[in-house]
Order: sequence, then C-alpha cells, then structure tokens
Amino acid sequence: VGVPKIRWIYTGLRVRELPRSIRFYAKLGFRIAKRGRMEHGGSWVELAIPHSTHRLELNYYPPGTRFYERISTGTEFDHFGFEVDGIEEWAESLRRRRLPIVADFDGTTHRLVYVRDPDGNWIEFYGSAAPTRGRRRRVA
Amino acid sequence: VGVPKIRWIYTGLRVRELPRSIRFYAKLGFRIAKRGRMEHGGSWVELAIPHSTHRLELNYYPPGTRFYERISTGTEFDHFGFEVDGIEEWAESLRRRRLPIVADFDGTTHRLVYVRDPDGNWIEFYGSAAPTRGRRRRVA
Repeated sequence: VGVPKIRWIYTGLRVRELPRSIRFYAKLGFRIAKRGRMEHGGSWVELAIPHSTHRLELNYYPPGTRFYERISTGTEFDHFGFEVDGIEEWAESLRRRRLPIVADFDGTTHRLVYVRDPDGNWIEFYGSAAPTRGRRRRVA
Repeated sequence: VGVPKIRWIYTGLRVRELPRSIRFYAKLGFRIAKRGRMEHGGSWVELAIPHSTHRLELNYYPPGTRFYERISTGTEFDHFGFEVDGIEEWAESLRRRRLPIVADFDGTTHRLVYVRDPDGNWIEFYGSAAPTRGRRRRVA
C-alpha cells in the first residue's frame, strides 16, 4: 500500500476581523488567492505570497455559529518566519509605513525584525545584516 | 529600489515539551531538519515534510528564561491544512495508530479528518472521498 501523498498546503489563523487582517497581510505582500464561506456560517480567505507555495488561511467564525469561540490570547502560536534579501530596506519600509514593530535585534551578522498582526501574532523577518555599520541590540 | 525578495520559510509553534511534539509530528511524516539553542536559553527544532518546502518550527522556552510565558490556551491558531491523496487509507492509519482524532467529516465528495497535537492544536487532513460507499457526517 505505502504512505499516501500528503502535501502541507496552509497554516490557518483565527482572526477577530477579516478585512483588517487582509489589509495588514497585504502590506507584507500577501494577496487573496481564494475565499469562501463555510457551511456553518464562518468565512475564510486564502492568502498567497510570491516565492512560497504555502498559503495563509484566515478564518472568521461569527458569534453564534458552530465553531465560534470567545477570543482569548494563548501561547500556542509563536511566529511566522520570513527570510528577506535586503532586510535593512525592508525594516526601513516597515517603519516608514508605520507597521507595528515589536522587536528589532540588530546583530553583527543578522538582523531580526518582528511585527505583530492585528490579532497579536508575531511575524519575524530575518536576513543578513549590512556589514558596514556598527551594530547594537535594540528592542522597539 | 523595488520590493525585497521575501520568502515565507516557516510557521512556529510554542510547545510545552519538545520530545513529545517531535514524536507526534514524526507520526505525520515530519523529520528533524535542523535544531539549535537560542541565546536566551530556549530550544528550537525545524521539522520538514516531503512534498512541501514550508517548515514547522517547534520552540521551547524554559521557565525562567527571557521569552518564557506561562502556557495558556488561546484562539489565535486555528489549524494546519494537509491535502492527502488517499484520505481513506490515511484516516484508517491515523485510527489504527491511535492518533487523537477530534473530528471526522465524511461528505459526499470530500473527507476531512482532524487530529490534535500534544498542545491542543488541530491538524486538518482533507481529500476526495471514496465514491463507492454511503456517506454520513461523523464527529468522533
């Protein structure tokens, strides 16, 4: 028989508000690939980003529907990781566009910048640090 | 200047116990690709699965270290989605190996089976249902 072919297609997050989250992820380069409604009344959006086949699914479960849960903050989700060619420019772009930067570790070889999404999830951007200037560790 | 090249590399979860989670995800086909320690005392493991370039990062932050948070259950993370060629055999395999099946929707065209990981996160497996037998909706 053998092992069936299994493809990991997406990571799904629950969001408190779909339009707000779609707008946020659009600023990081995500575009809507598909969207639809669930039988029980929820809505989903599948977001795609260039250079990756993995999709981000945003799910919204309205109050009163079957899978609704009162929103609460937990520790299960840690962060998404994005590798960036040109992390310095990207960090500058995040800052210029006033995306919520929650941490910025500027090391001798790498720079790691974190933003938080509208539901509080952290997103990590990392890349080789520019070699020409002094480094220090910073937390925004 | 243009937009920098951004590659979405991984989804990271916080786990309460690394070995237990590594064993669990191994049963789904994940293998350790890399692992290491963080400067502040945490540990991370990067898991890879065939047919996907996206990685699963499991992070453990011991009590007393900088990024430790008391474990709490929240609603941010929804589920991972895996498309399976041969969902019937895979569902049977999950059942036989006593993986914790939390829901099983057996529709006319598709079957969706959910398992929960050791920290309570849901994992969805979906695929075309076998066309030859009667269907009913089941929840385990």
